[in-house]
Amino acid sequence: MNYPFGFYSFGKNIGIKDDSLDFAVIYSQKICKAAAVFTKNNYPGSPVIVGREHIRTGKLQAIVINSKNSNVATGERGINDARNTCKALANSLGISPELILPSSTGVIGVPLPVDKILKACSEAKENLKEGNLEEVARAILTTDTKSKISFREIEFNGKRGVIYGMAKGAGMIEPNMATMLSYILSDWDVDQDLYSELKFCVDETFNCLSIDSDTSTSDTVVLMASGEAGILPSQIFRKALYEICLDLTKQIAMDGEGATKLIIVKVENAKNETQAIKIGKSILNSPLVKTAIYGGDPNWGRLVMAIGKVFDEPIPYENLQIHFGDLSVKDASTEQKILLSKYLKENTEINLKVNLGMGTSKKEFYGCDFTEGYIKENAYYTT
Amino acid sequence: MNYPFGFYSFGKNIGIKDDSLDFAVIYSQKICKAAAVFTKNNYPGSPVIVGREHIRTGKLQAIVINSKNSNVATGERGINDARNTCKALANSLGISPELILPSSTGVIGVPLPVDKILKACSEAKENLKEGNLEEVARAILTTDTKSKISFREIEFNGKRGVIYGMAKGAGMIEPNMATMLSYILSDWDVDQDLYSELKFCVDETFNCLSIDSDTSTSDTVVLMASGEAGILPSQIFRKALYEICLDLTKQIAMDGEGATKLIIVKVENAKNETQAIKIGKSILNSPLVKTAIYGGDPNWGRLVMAIGKVFDEPIPYENLQIHFGDLSVKDASTEQKILLSKYLKENTEINLKVNLGMGTSKKEFYGCDFTEGYIKENAYYTT
Repeated sequence: MNYPFGFYSFGKNIGIKDDSLDFAVIYSQKICKAAAVFTKNNYPGSPVIVGREHIRTGKLQAIVINSKNSNVATGERGINDARNTCKALANSLGISPELILPSSTGVIGVPLPVDKILKACSEAKENLKEGNLEEVARAILTTDTKSKISFREIEFNGKRGVIYGMAKGAGMIEPNMATMLSYILSDWDVDQDLYSELKFCVDETFNCLSIDSDTSTSDTVVLMASGEAGILPSQIFRKALYEICLDLTKQIAMDGEGATKLIIVKVENAKNETQAIKIGKSILNSPLVKTAIYGGDPNWGRLVMAIGKVFDEPIPYENLQIHFGDLSVKDASTEQKILLSKYLKENTEINLKVNLGMGTSKKEFYGCDFTEGYIKENAYYTT
Repeated sequence: MNYPFGFYSFGKNIGIKDDSLDFAVIYSQKICKAAAVFTKNNYPGSPVIVGREHIRTGKLQAIVINSKNSNVATGERGINDARNTCKALANSLGISPELILPSSTGVIGVPLPVDKILKACSEAKENLKEGNLEEVARAILTTDTKSKISFREIEFNGKRGVIYGMAKGAGMIEPNMATMLSYILSDWDVDQDLYSELKFCVDETFNCLSIDSDTSTSDTVVLMASGEAGILPSQIFRKALYEICLDLTKQIAMDGEGATKLIIVKVENAKNETQAIKIGKSILNSPLVKTAIYGGDPNWGRLVMAIGKVFDEPIPYENLQIHFGDLSVKDASTEQKILLSKYLKENTEINLKVNLGMGTSKKEFYGCDFTEGYIKENAYYTT
């Protein structure tokens, strides 16, 4: 596995809830240019509040993350815990606390076991290993079943660098202008504004994702670019960054709580992007569409319903074309329904294409089916 | 059981899908004043399209209903089927087709087996029995497990009359300015505009209901008032009508697909009704709130998340008060969480009270928990 040069990290267990990895640090030997997008939830977690302050300078040198407890809805105490975490790590690394982005994920409303975290921070320096980022990708997981990693090696002007991304997230996911936790690290820099590059890619990927229509209070995507390998033209940097974000988005959708199928909804020929988003999200979030796909039932009437319940975007019925894969579903005959059911049952990636016949705008959305596993996971995910 | 005077009805099986009751007629010997509200889904069913035409005169004398097939997304053929159904019944009853409201519920996108329906219409007159409305309430069911009936006997100025309501609905239910199928019949009339009386009651009851956030293409509430018993002042008529609508709403929520618990969300001290609706619906439709209640998990952080994801209605966290029953949940201690879990586990009616501390507006919302039963019902409810 190829890491960006100059990044050190570790993940370990510090006993926040059980004996799985629950704490991680990422450190860059060089101060990085950095950009981040955060949740729009009106009750952001304490780390998001502190992280917004620290990213203001456009510089970061480290990220400190714990899983199993999100430090959300914990008031002043929570904010102090996030600040003290940064301070303790800054001491250990010999850098300024403002160069550290704190990040937490897990249960909401429970104070952080801060003593365990401060102790882990104070010992951070000695635990750091060069690269080692898969360990971090494992340490940030909660209800995820798999690590989510995507990277691109890029050669340009005789130099070689890497953009390396990881993410977690399986439930409470409809990012809405931000996303769950994702850390993207690079030894390349870009010849354009870093935030604009990140925002563009996030809007086309993570922001088109929904597992369950619920927007987390902890969503964070952060990009750190050290520039050790040099500076890339935007078209090269952005292409790789977009591919990584898209890859992570699909990995999250595929690993949604209880999911058995990745659903990709392509809305085409929309009047504009707003219309595409409203219709795409309505389909992606309809429990009746999601359960039909789980059951291999070509119940296309539910798709019509989901499009029709976007009251302020009426689409003439005759304009509508709907496909599962290459198969047309509207007014499907009995024979066609057998093929459609086969398509749903035999694939783990389900492509729904909805042509609105209204204009030229198009957009893709990413989600998963809805199964008994989601219910079990969330009925008994205890506080 | 007490029926309004002068109404005749029957329910029977005509073999649309299986051998359960699937066809019903309601007939009033007198032409009634009538009002109806319908789904706002942009793809209303054919019966809704024809019903909107027929109700325009404010008069109805009969309703013809089938379950197991909704006659939605069936094009011109579907509309003709609905018109021909009304004509066949009109012939049998010796009345005008425009005095008949057609209504269908069931699978979307499959043409109606119209021959069976026309035959049943032609034999309708001989099947009618006085009252007999429980049979209709049974015949309109789809995935419901129970008939839903509510009525009030009213004495006024020495006369006696009845308002009698029935409803069906268990899935694809977030009515949004209309509702699933409900028929309300009375031998009383009211001294105000019938539509206004109905709309007021629907907005406070059926429109505050959500089973699964999906808005059906067939939603219809119709009220027929014969006036045989005389005319009631609005305050008496509306009170009874409201109580019936509320009762039916709760019966639907309690019988939601897979549901084990009725959830009542009371939003208090909102800035205005719009804010109350946005916050109330966000809580009521959050899969994570619904699964936590199913699991008896006092995971109040999910309530905070659901309030916070209404991005355009930020509520200062310190303003928020949240109760399950009489128990405060925000920042609950371990002991308090044990009591909260007990409350969730031991009750089938769960009252959530959310005080926003923003103003004086308040509103109640009705839904149910989210269980494996919902998934099973809808993954394999075959087309």
